[in-house]
Amino acid sequence: MTSTTPGERPLLYLDDLSVGQRFGGGEHALEEEAITAFAAEFDPQPFHLDHATAVGTLFDRLVASGWHTAAVTMRLQVELIPIAGGLVGASAAVEWPRPTLPGDVLRIDAEILEVRPSRSRPDRGLVRLVTETSNQRGEVVQVVTATIVVPRRPD
Amino acid sequence: MTSTTPGERPLLYLDDLSVGQRFGGGEHALEEEAITAFAAEFDPQPFHLDHATAVGTLFDRLVASGWHTAAVTMRLQVELIPIAGGLVGASAAVEWPRPTLPGDVLRIDAEILEVRPSRSRPDRGLVRLVTETSNQRGEVVQVVTATIVVPRRPD
Repeated sequence: MTSTTPGERPLLYLDDLSVGQRFGGGEHALEEEAITAFAAEFDPQPFHLDHATAVGTLFDRLVASGWHTAAVTMRLQVELIPIAGGLVGASAAVEWPRPTLPGDVLRIDAEILEVRPSRSRPDRGLVRLVTETSNQRGEVVQVVTATIVVPRRPD
Repeated sequence: MTSTTPGERPLLYLDDLSVGQRFGGGEHALEEEAITAFAAEFDPQPFHLDHATAVGTLFDRLVASGWHTAAVTMRLQVELIPIAGGLVGASAAVEWPRPTLPGDVLRIDAEILEVRPSRSRPDRGLVRLVTETSNQRGEVVQVVTATIVVPRRPD
């Protein structure tokens, strides 16, 4: 049996994944209104809320919250990486080498770093995945390395 | 001169911070509507969107996106940790030992792990900060260790 998502992509089980496998794509525009709305709810700092209040800060201009970039990256991962059971992270290491700016269009490029069957739970395993998020100029705005739980293909 | 935030808390510069210093508090309720709205925008997976679709998944019930917990934690950090120049992260390591559930009330407890003046930029330094996010049962739902950029007190 081949499981499929609503979009008819075959779902990938632990047995289908290997080191070096890649996923990528996306074209998610981050408009100013979305940046300031996210900031007002979750990260209300001068450099995320408004052009005027951003002047004179470390960034000296309006930039997206790093957690907003992380959330958009998650959205792109869900759309582009069809793991059976969903993308369930136990931990993640995030770096933000440069900020996301209003109007930036984000895409992701992901690669599997490690595939490890669980010793204690034979029905699943752990997969380490690195995902780069880039803007339309090809500049990397975020790198997240996550360990996710992936089920083995049912017999 | 003592700088203050709008809430009249004195702002803390690199010179004011030391290893072991603690910050904490907060009482942020995460209601079901907020959990499913965040998921619809950023993490549209069955276990984040609806009670019915969550049944049979790894969680087997509706849980918040880990990135939603991270975003709420950022909100509490902005409210409770008055760093001059704002909280600007260069990187963060996040662990989610258990999920946030609908109705959970979150608080944070943060501690400074390291204070390091910059060699190349004498006007600033790097501070490593660990922040635990807990629910109303005292269970830790997230641990984030971040390196933030903090300005030195101006002469």
